[in-house]
Amino acid sequence: MLDLRKATGAEIRRLARNGEWKGPTPGLAVGYAQANLAVVPRDLAFDFLLFCQRNPRACPLLDVTDVGCPEPRYAAPGADLRTDVPRYCAYRYGEWMDDPSDLFDWWRDDLVGFLLGCSFTFENALQRAGLPVRHLEQGCNVPMYRTTLACRPAGVFAGPMVVSMRPMTPAQAKEAARICRHYPLSHGEPLHSGNPAALGIADIDHPDFGDAVEIRPGEVPVFWACGVTPQAVAMKARPSLLLTHKPGHMFVTDLRDENRTGEREA
Amino acid sequence: MLDLRKATGAEIRRLARNGEWKGPTPGLAVGYAQANLAVVPRDLAFDFLLFCQRNPRACPLLDVTDVGCPEPRYAAPGADLRTDVPRYCAYRYGEWMDDPSDLFDWWRDDLVGFLLGCSFTFENALQRAGLPVRHLEQGCNVPMYRTTLACRPAGVFAGPMVVSMRPMTPAQAKEAARICRHYPLSHGEPLHSGNPAALGIADIDHPDFGDAVEIRPGEVPVFWACGVTPQAVAMKARPSLLLTHKPGHMFVTDLRDENRTGEREA
Repeated sequence: MLDLRKATGAEIRRLARNGEWKGPTPGLAVGYAQANLAVVPRDLAFDFLLFCQRNPRACPLLDVTDVGCPEPRYAAPGADLRTDVPRYCAYRYGEWMDDPSDLFDWWRDDLVGFLLGCSFTFENALQRAGLPVRHLEQGCNVPMYRTTLACRPAGVFAGPMVVSMRPMTPAQAKEAARICRHYPLSHGEPLHSGNPAALGIADIDHPDFGDAVEIRPGEVPVFWACGVTPQAVAMKARPSLLLTHKPGHMFVTDLRDENRTGEREA
Repeated sequence: MLDLRKATGAEIRRLARNGEWKGPTPGLAVGYAQANLAVVPRDLAFDFLLFCQRNPRACPLLDVTDVGCPEPRYAAPGADLRTDVPRYCAYRYGEWMDDPSDLFDWWRDDLVGFLLGCSFTFENALQRAGLPVRHLEQGCNVPMYRTTLACRPAGVFAGPMVVSMRPMTPAQAKEAARICRHYPLSHGEPLHSGNPAALGIADIDHPDFGDAVEIRPGEVPVFWACGVTPQAVAMKARPSLLLTHKPGHMFVTDLRDENRTGEREA
């Protein structure tokens, strides 16, 4: 029996492809970078790629496929974006349509797939350093908030930055910043710590996405740019078709967590 | 009288715009990142942006303009790509047409401008550290070579990596690598040092572009990814229109040299 924590990215993808793993992926294939998936039609792909380039904290690019090609040749050669994610979401003109287990009924020859770094990488690093990751301790989803920070727009894509929050003491927050600086492909350093109002967050106990977590005495909320940002922005642009992973059900790449440049080892 | 070494990026751009500076830009506005310029039509912009994303060593993106907009709002708000470079080159279907001093006769509503980091930033850093930059000592252009390293292709854009070369002792090369690691937007660490044949370079004394430089006893050739790569690749794709800076006549940005992420200070 395969220990999923110790599995490789390729092993998790094979299980997802064969329908043997349909669940969320946190804690699986530790050491392999996991990725947010967004698939848009060719006519929006330049704007979306430009949006990612202009907002690297929220949208760290791990790989972008050739038009119509479901293989992310760089982040996971041989993989198939249509089958290798445990569960997907499909949207037409910004409206949810289905949560399919593969994309064969949705794929088109004009689609471009984007794989964007996710927070699991830096959360693993925080845990290794003994820093608290409260939503993991509490067994719930990370709290996420719409802010009044505007992303740099690109064509039809525009909207506010979405941030995730993890409570820590100020000393722990400093240490977290020092660690996360080394993971630019996993959202990098926190954007802010301390005052939710500085980001336009009115009520820290009522996140816009995910679940509220306990902030203990002596702790402050620490905010990171969040991978939900490009999805929220893409949805708002109401593309004829948008395909994504189902939240928490990520694409597991062959890239190692500690990869800091996105360049693959030779 | 303005000391051009100590000028700001904006001052150099204003001189270029007014026709008061038509020369090359090395050594001007020290501390400000200078950039390679490439302008392509909208229908090739996705492929070109993707080429840059896939080949970040050769093509470090500083800014990409909105379609038809000549202002690089991020790297130099208020600047105009049509006037602020001392001298341009214009190509149709890969053939050289003219070296205009502005782009008013060439600009179209469907053009997209790309500003890519250049080697001047890391050369300044090498000089500050007391390391040799031979072509500057000899007062000539840096030697550049086509290699047998293939770039990762993107759509119509494909071709070999072009590298620049600076001779150093092995100890100096190690120090140079340590320094250049901090300048990912200026080509980053050397790709290789020592053996030209490992890159498919047959004759180190006959560069494909630029000038040969002296390699002294005890020195080895040290190779960096070069910003000529995207230009060579773009030319080969024979776009209906390609506009660039004239070699050495760069666009001077408002970004500081030491900027490591491309994010602008708040």
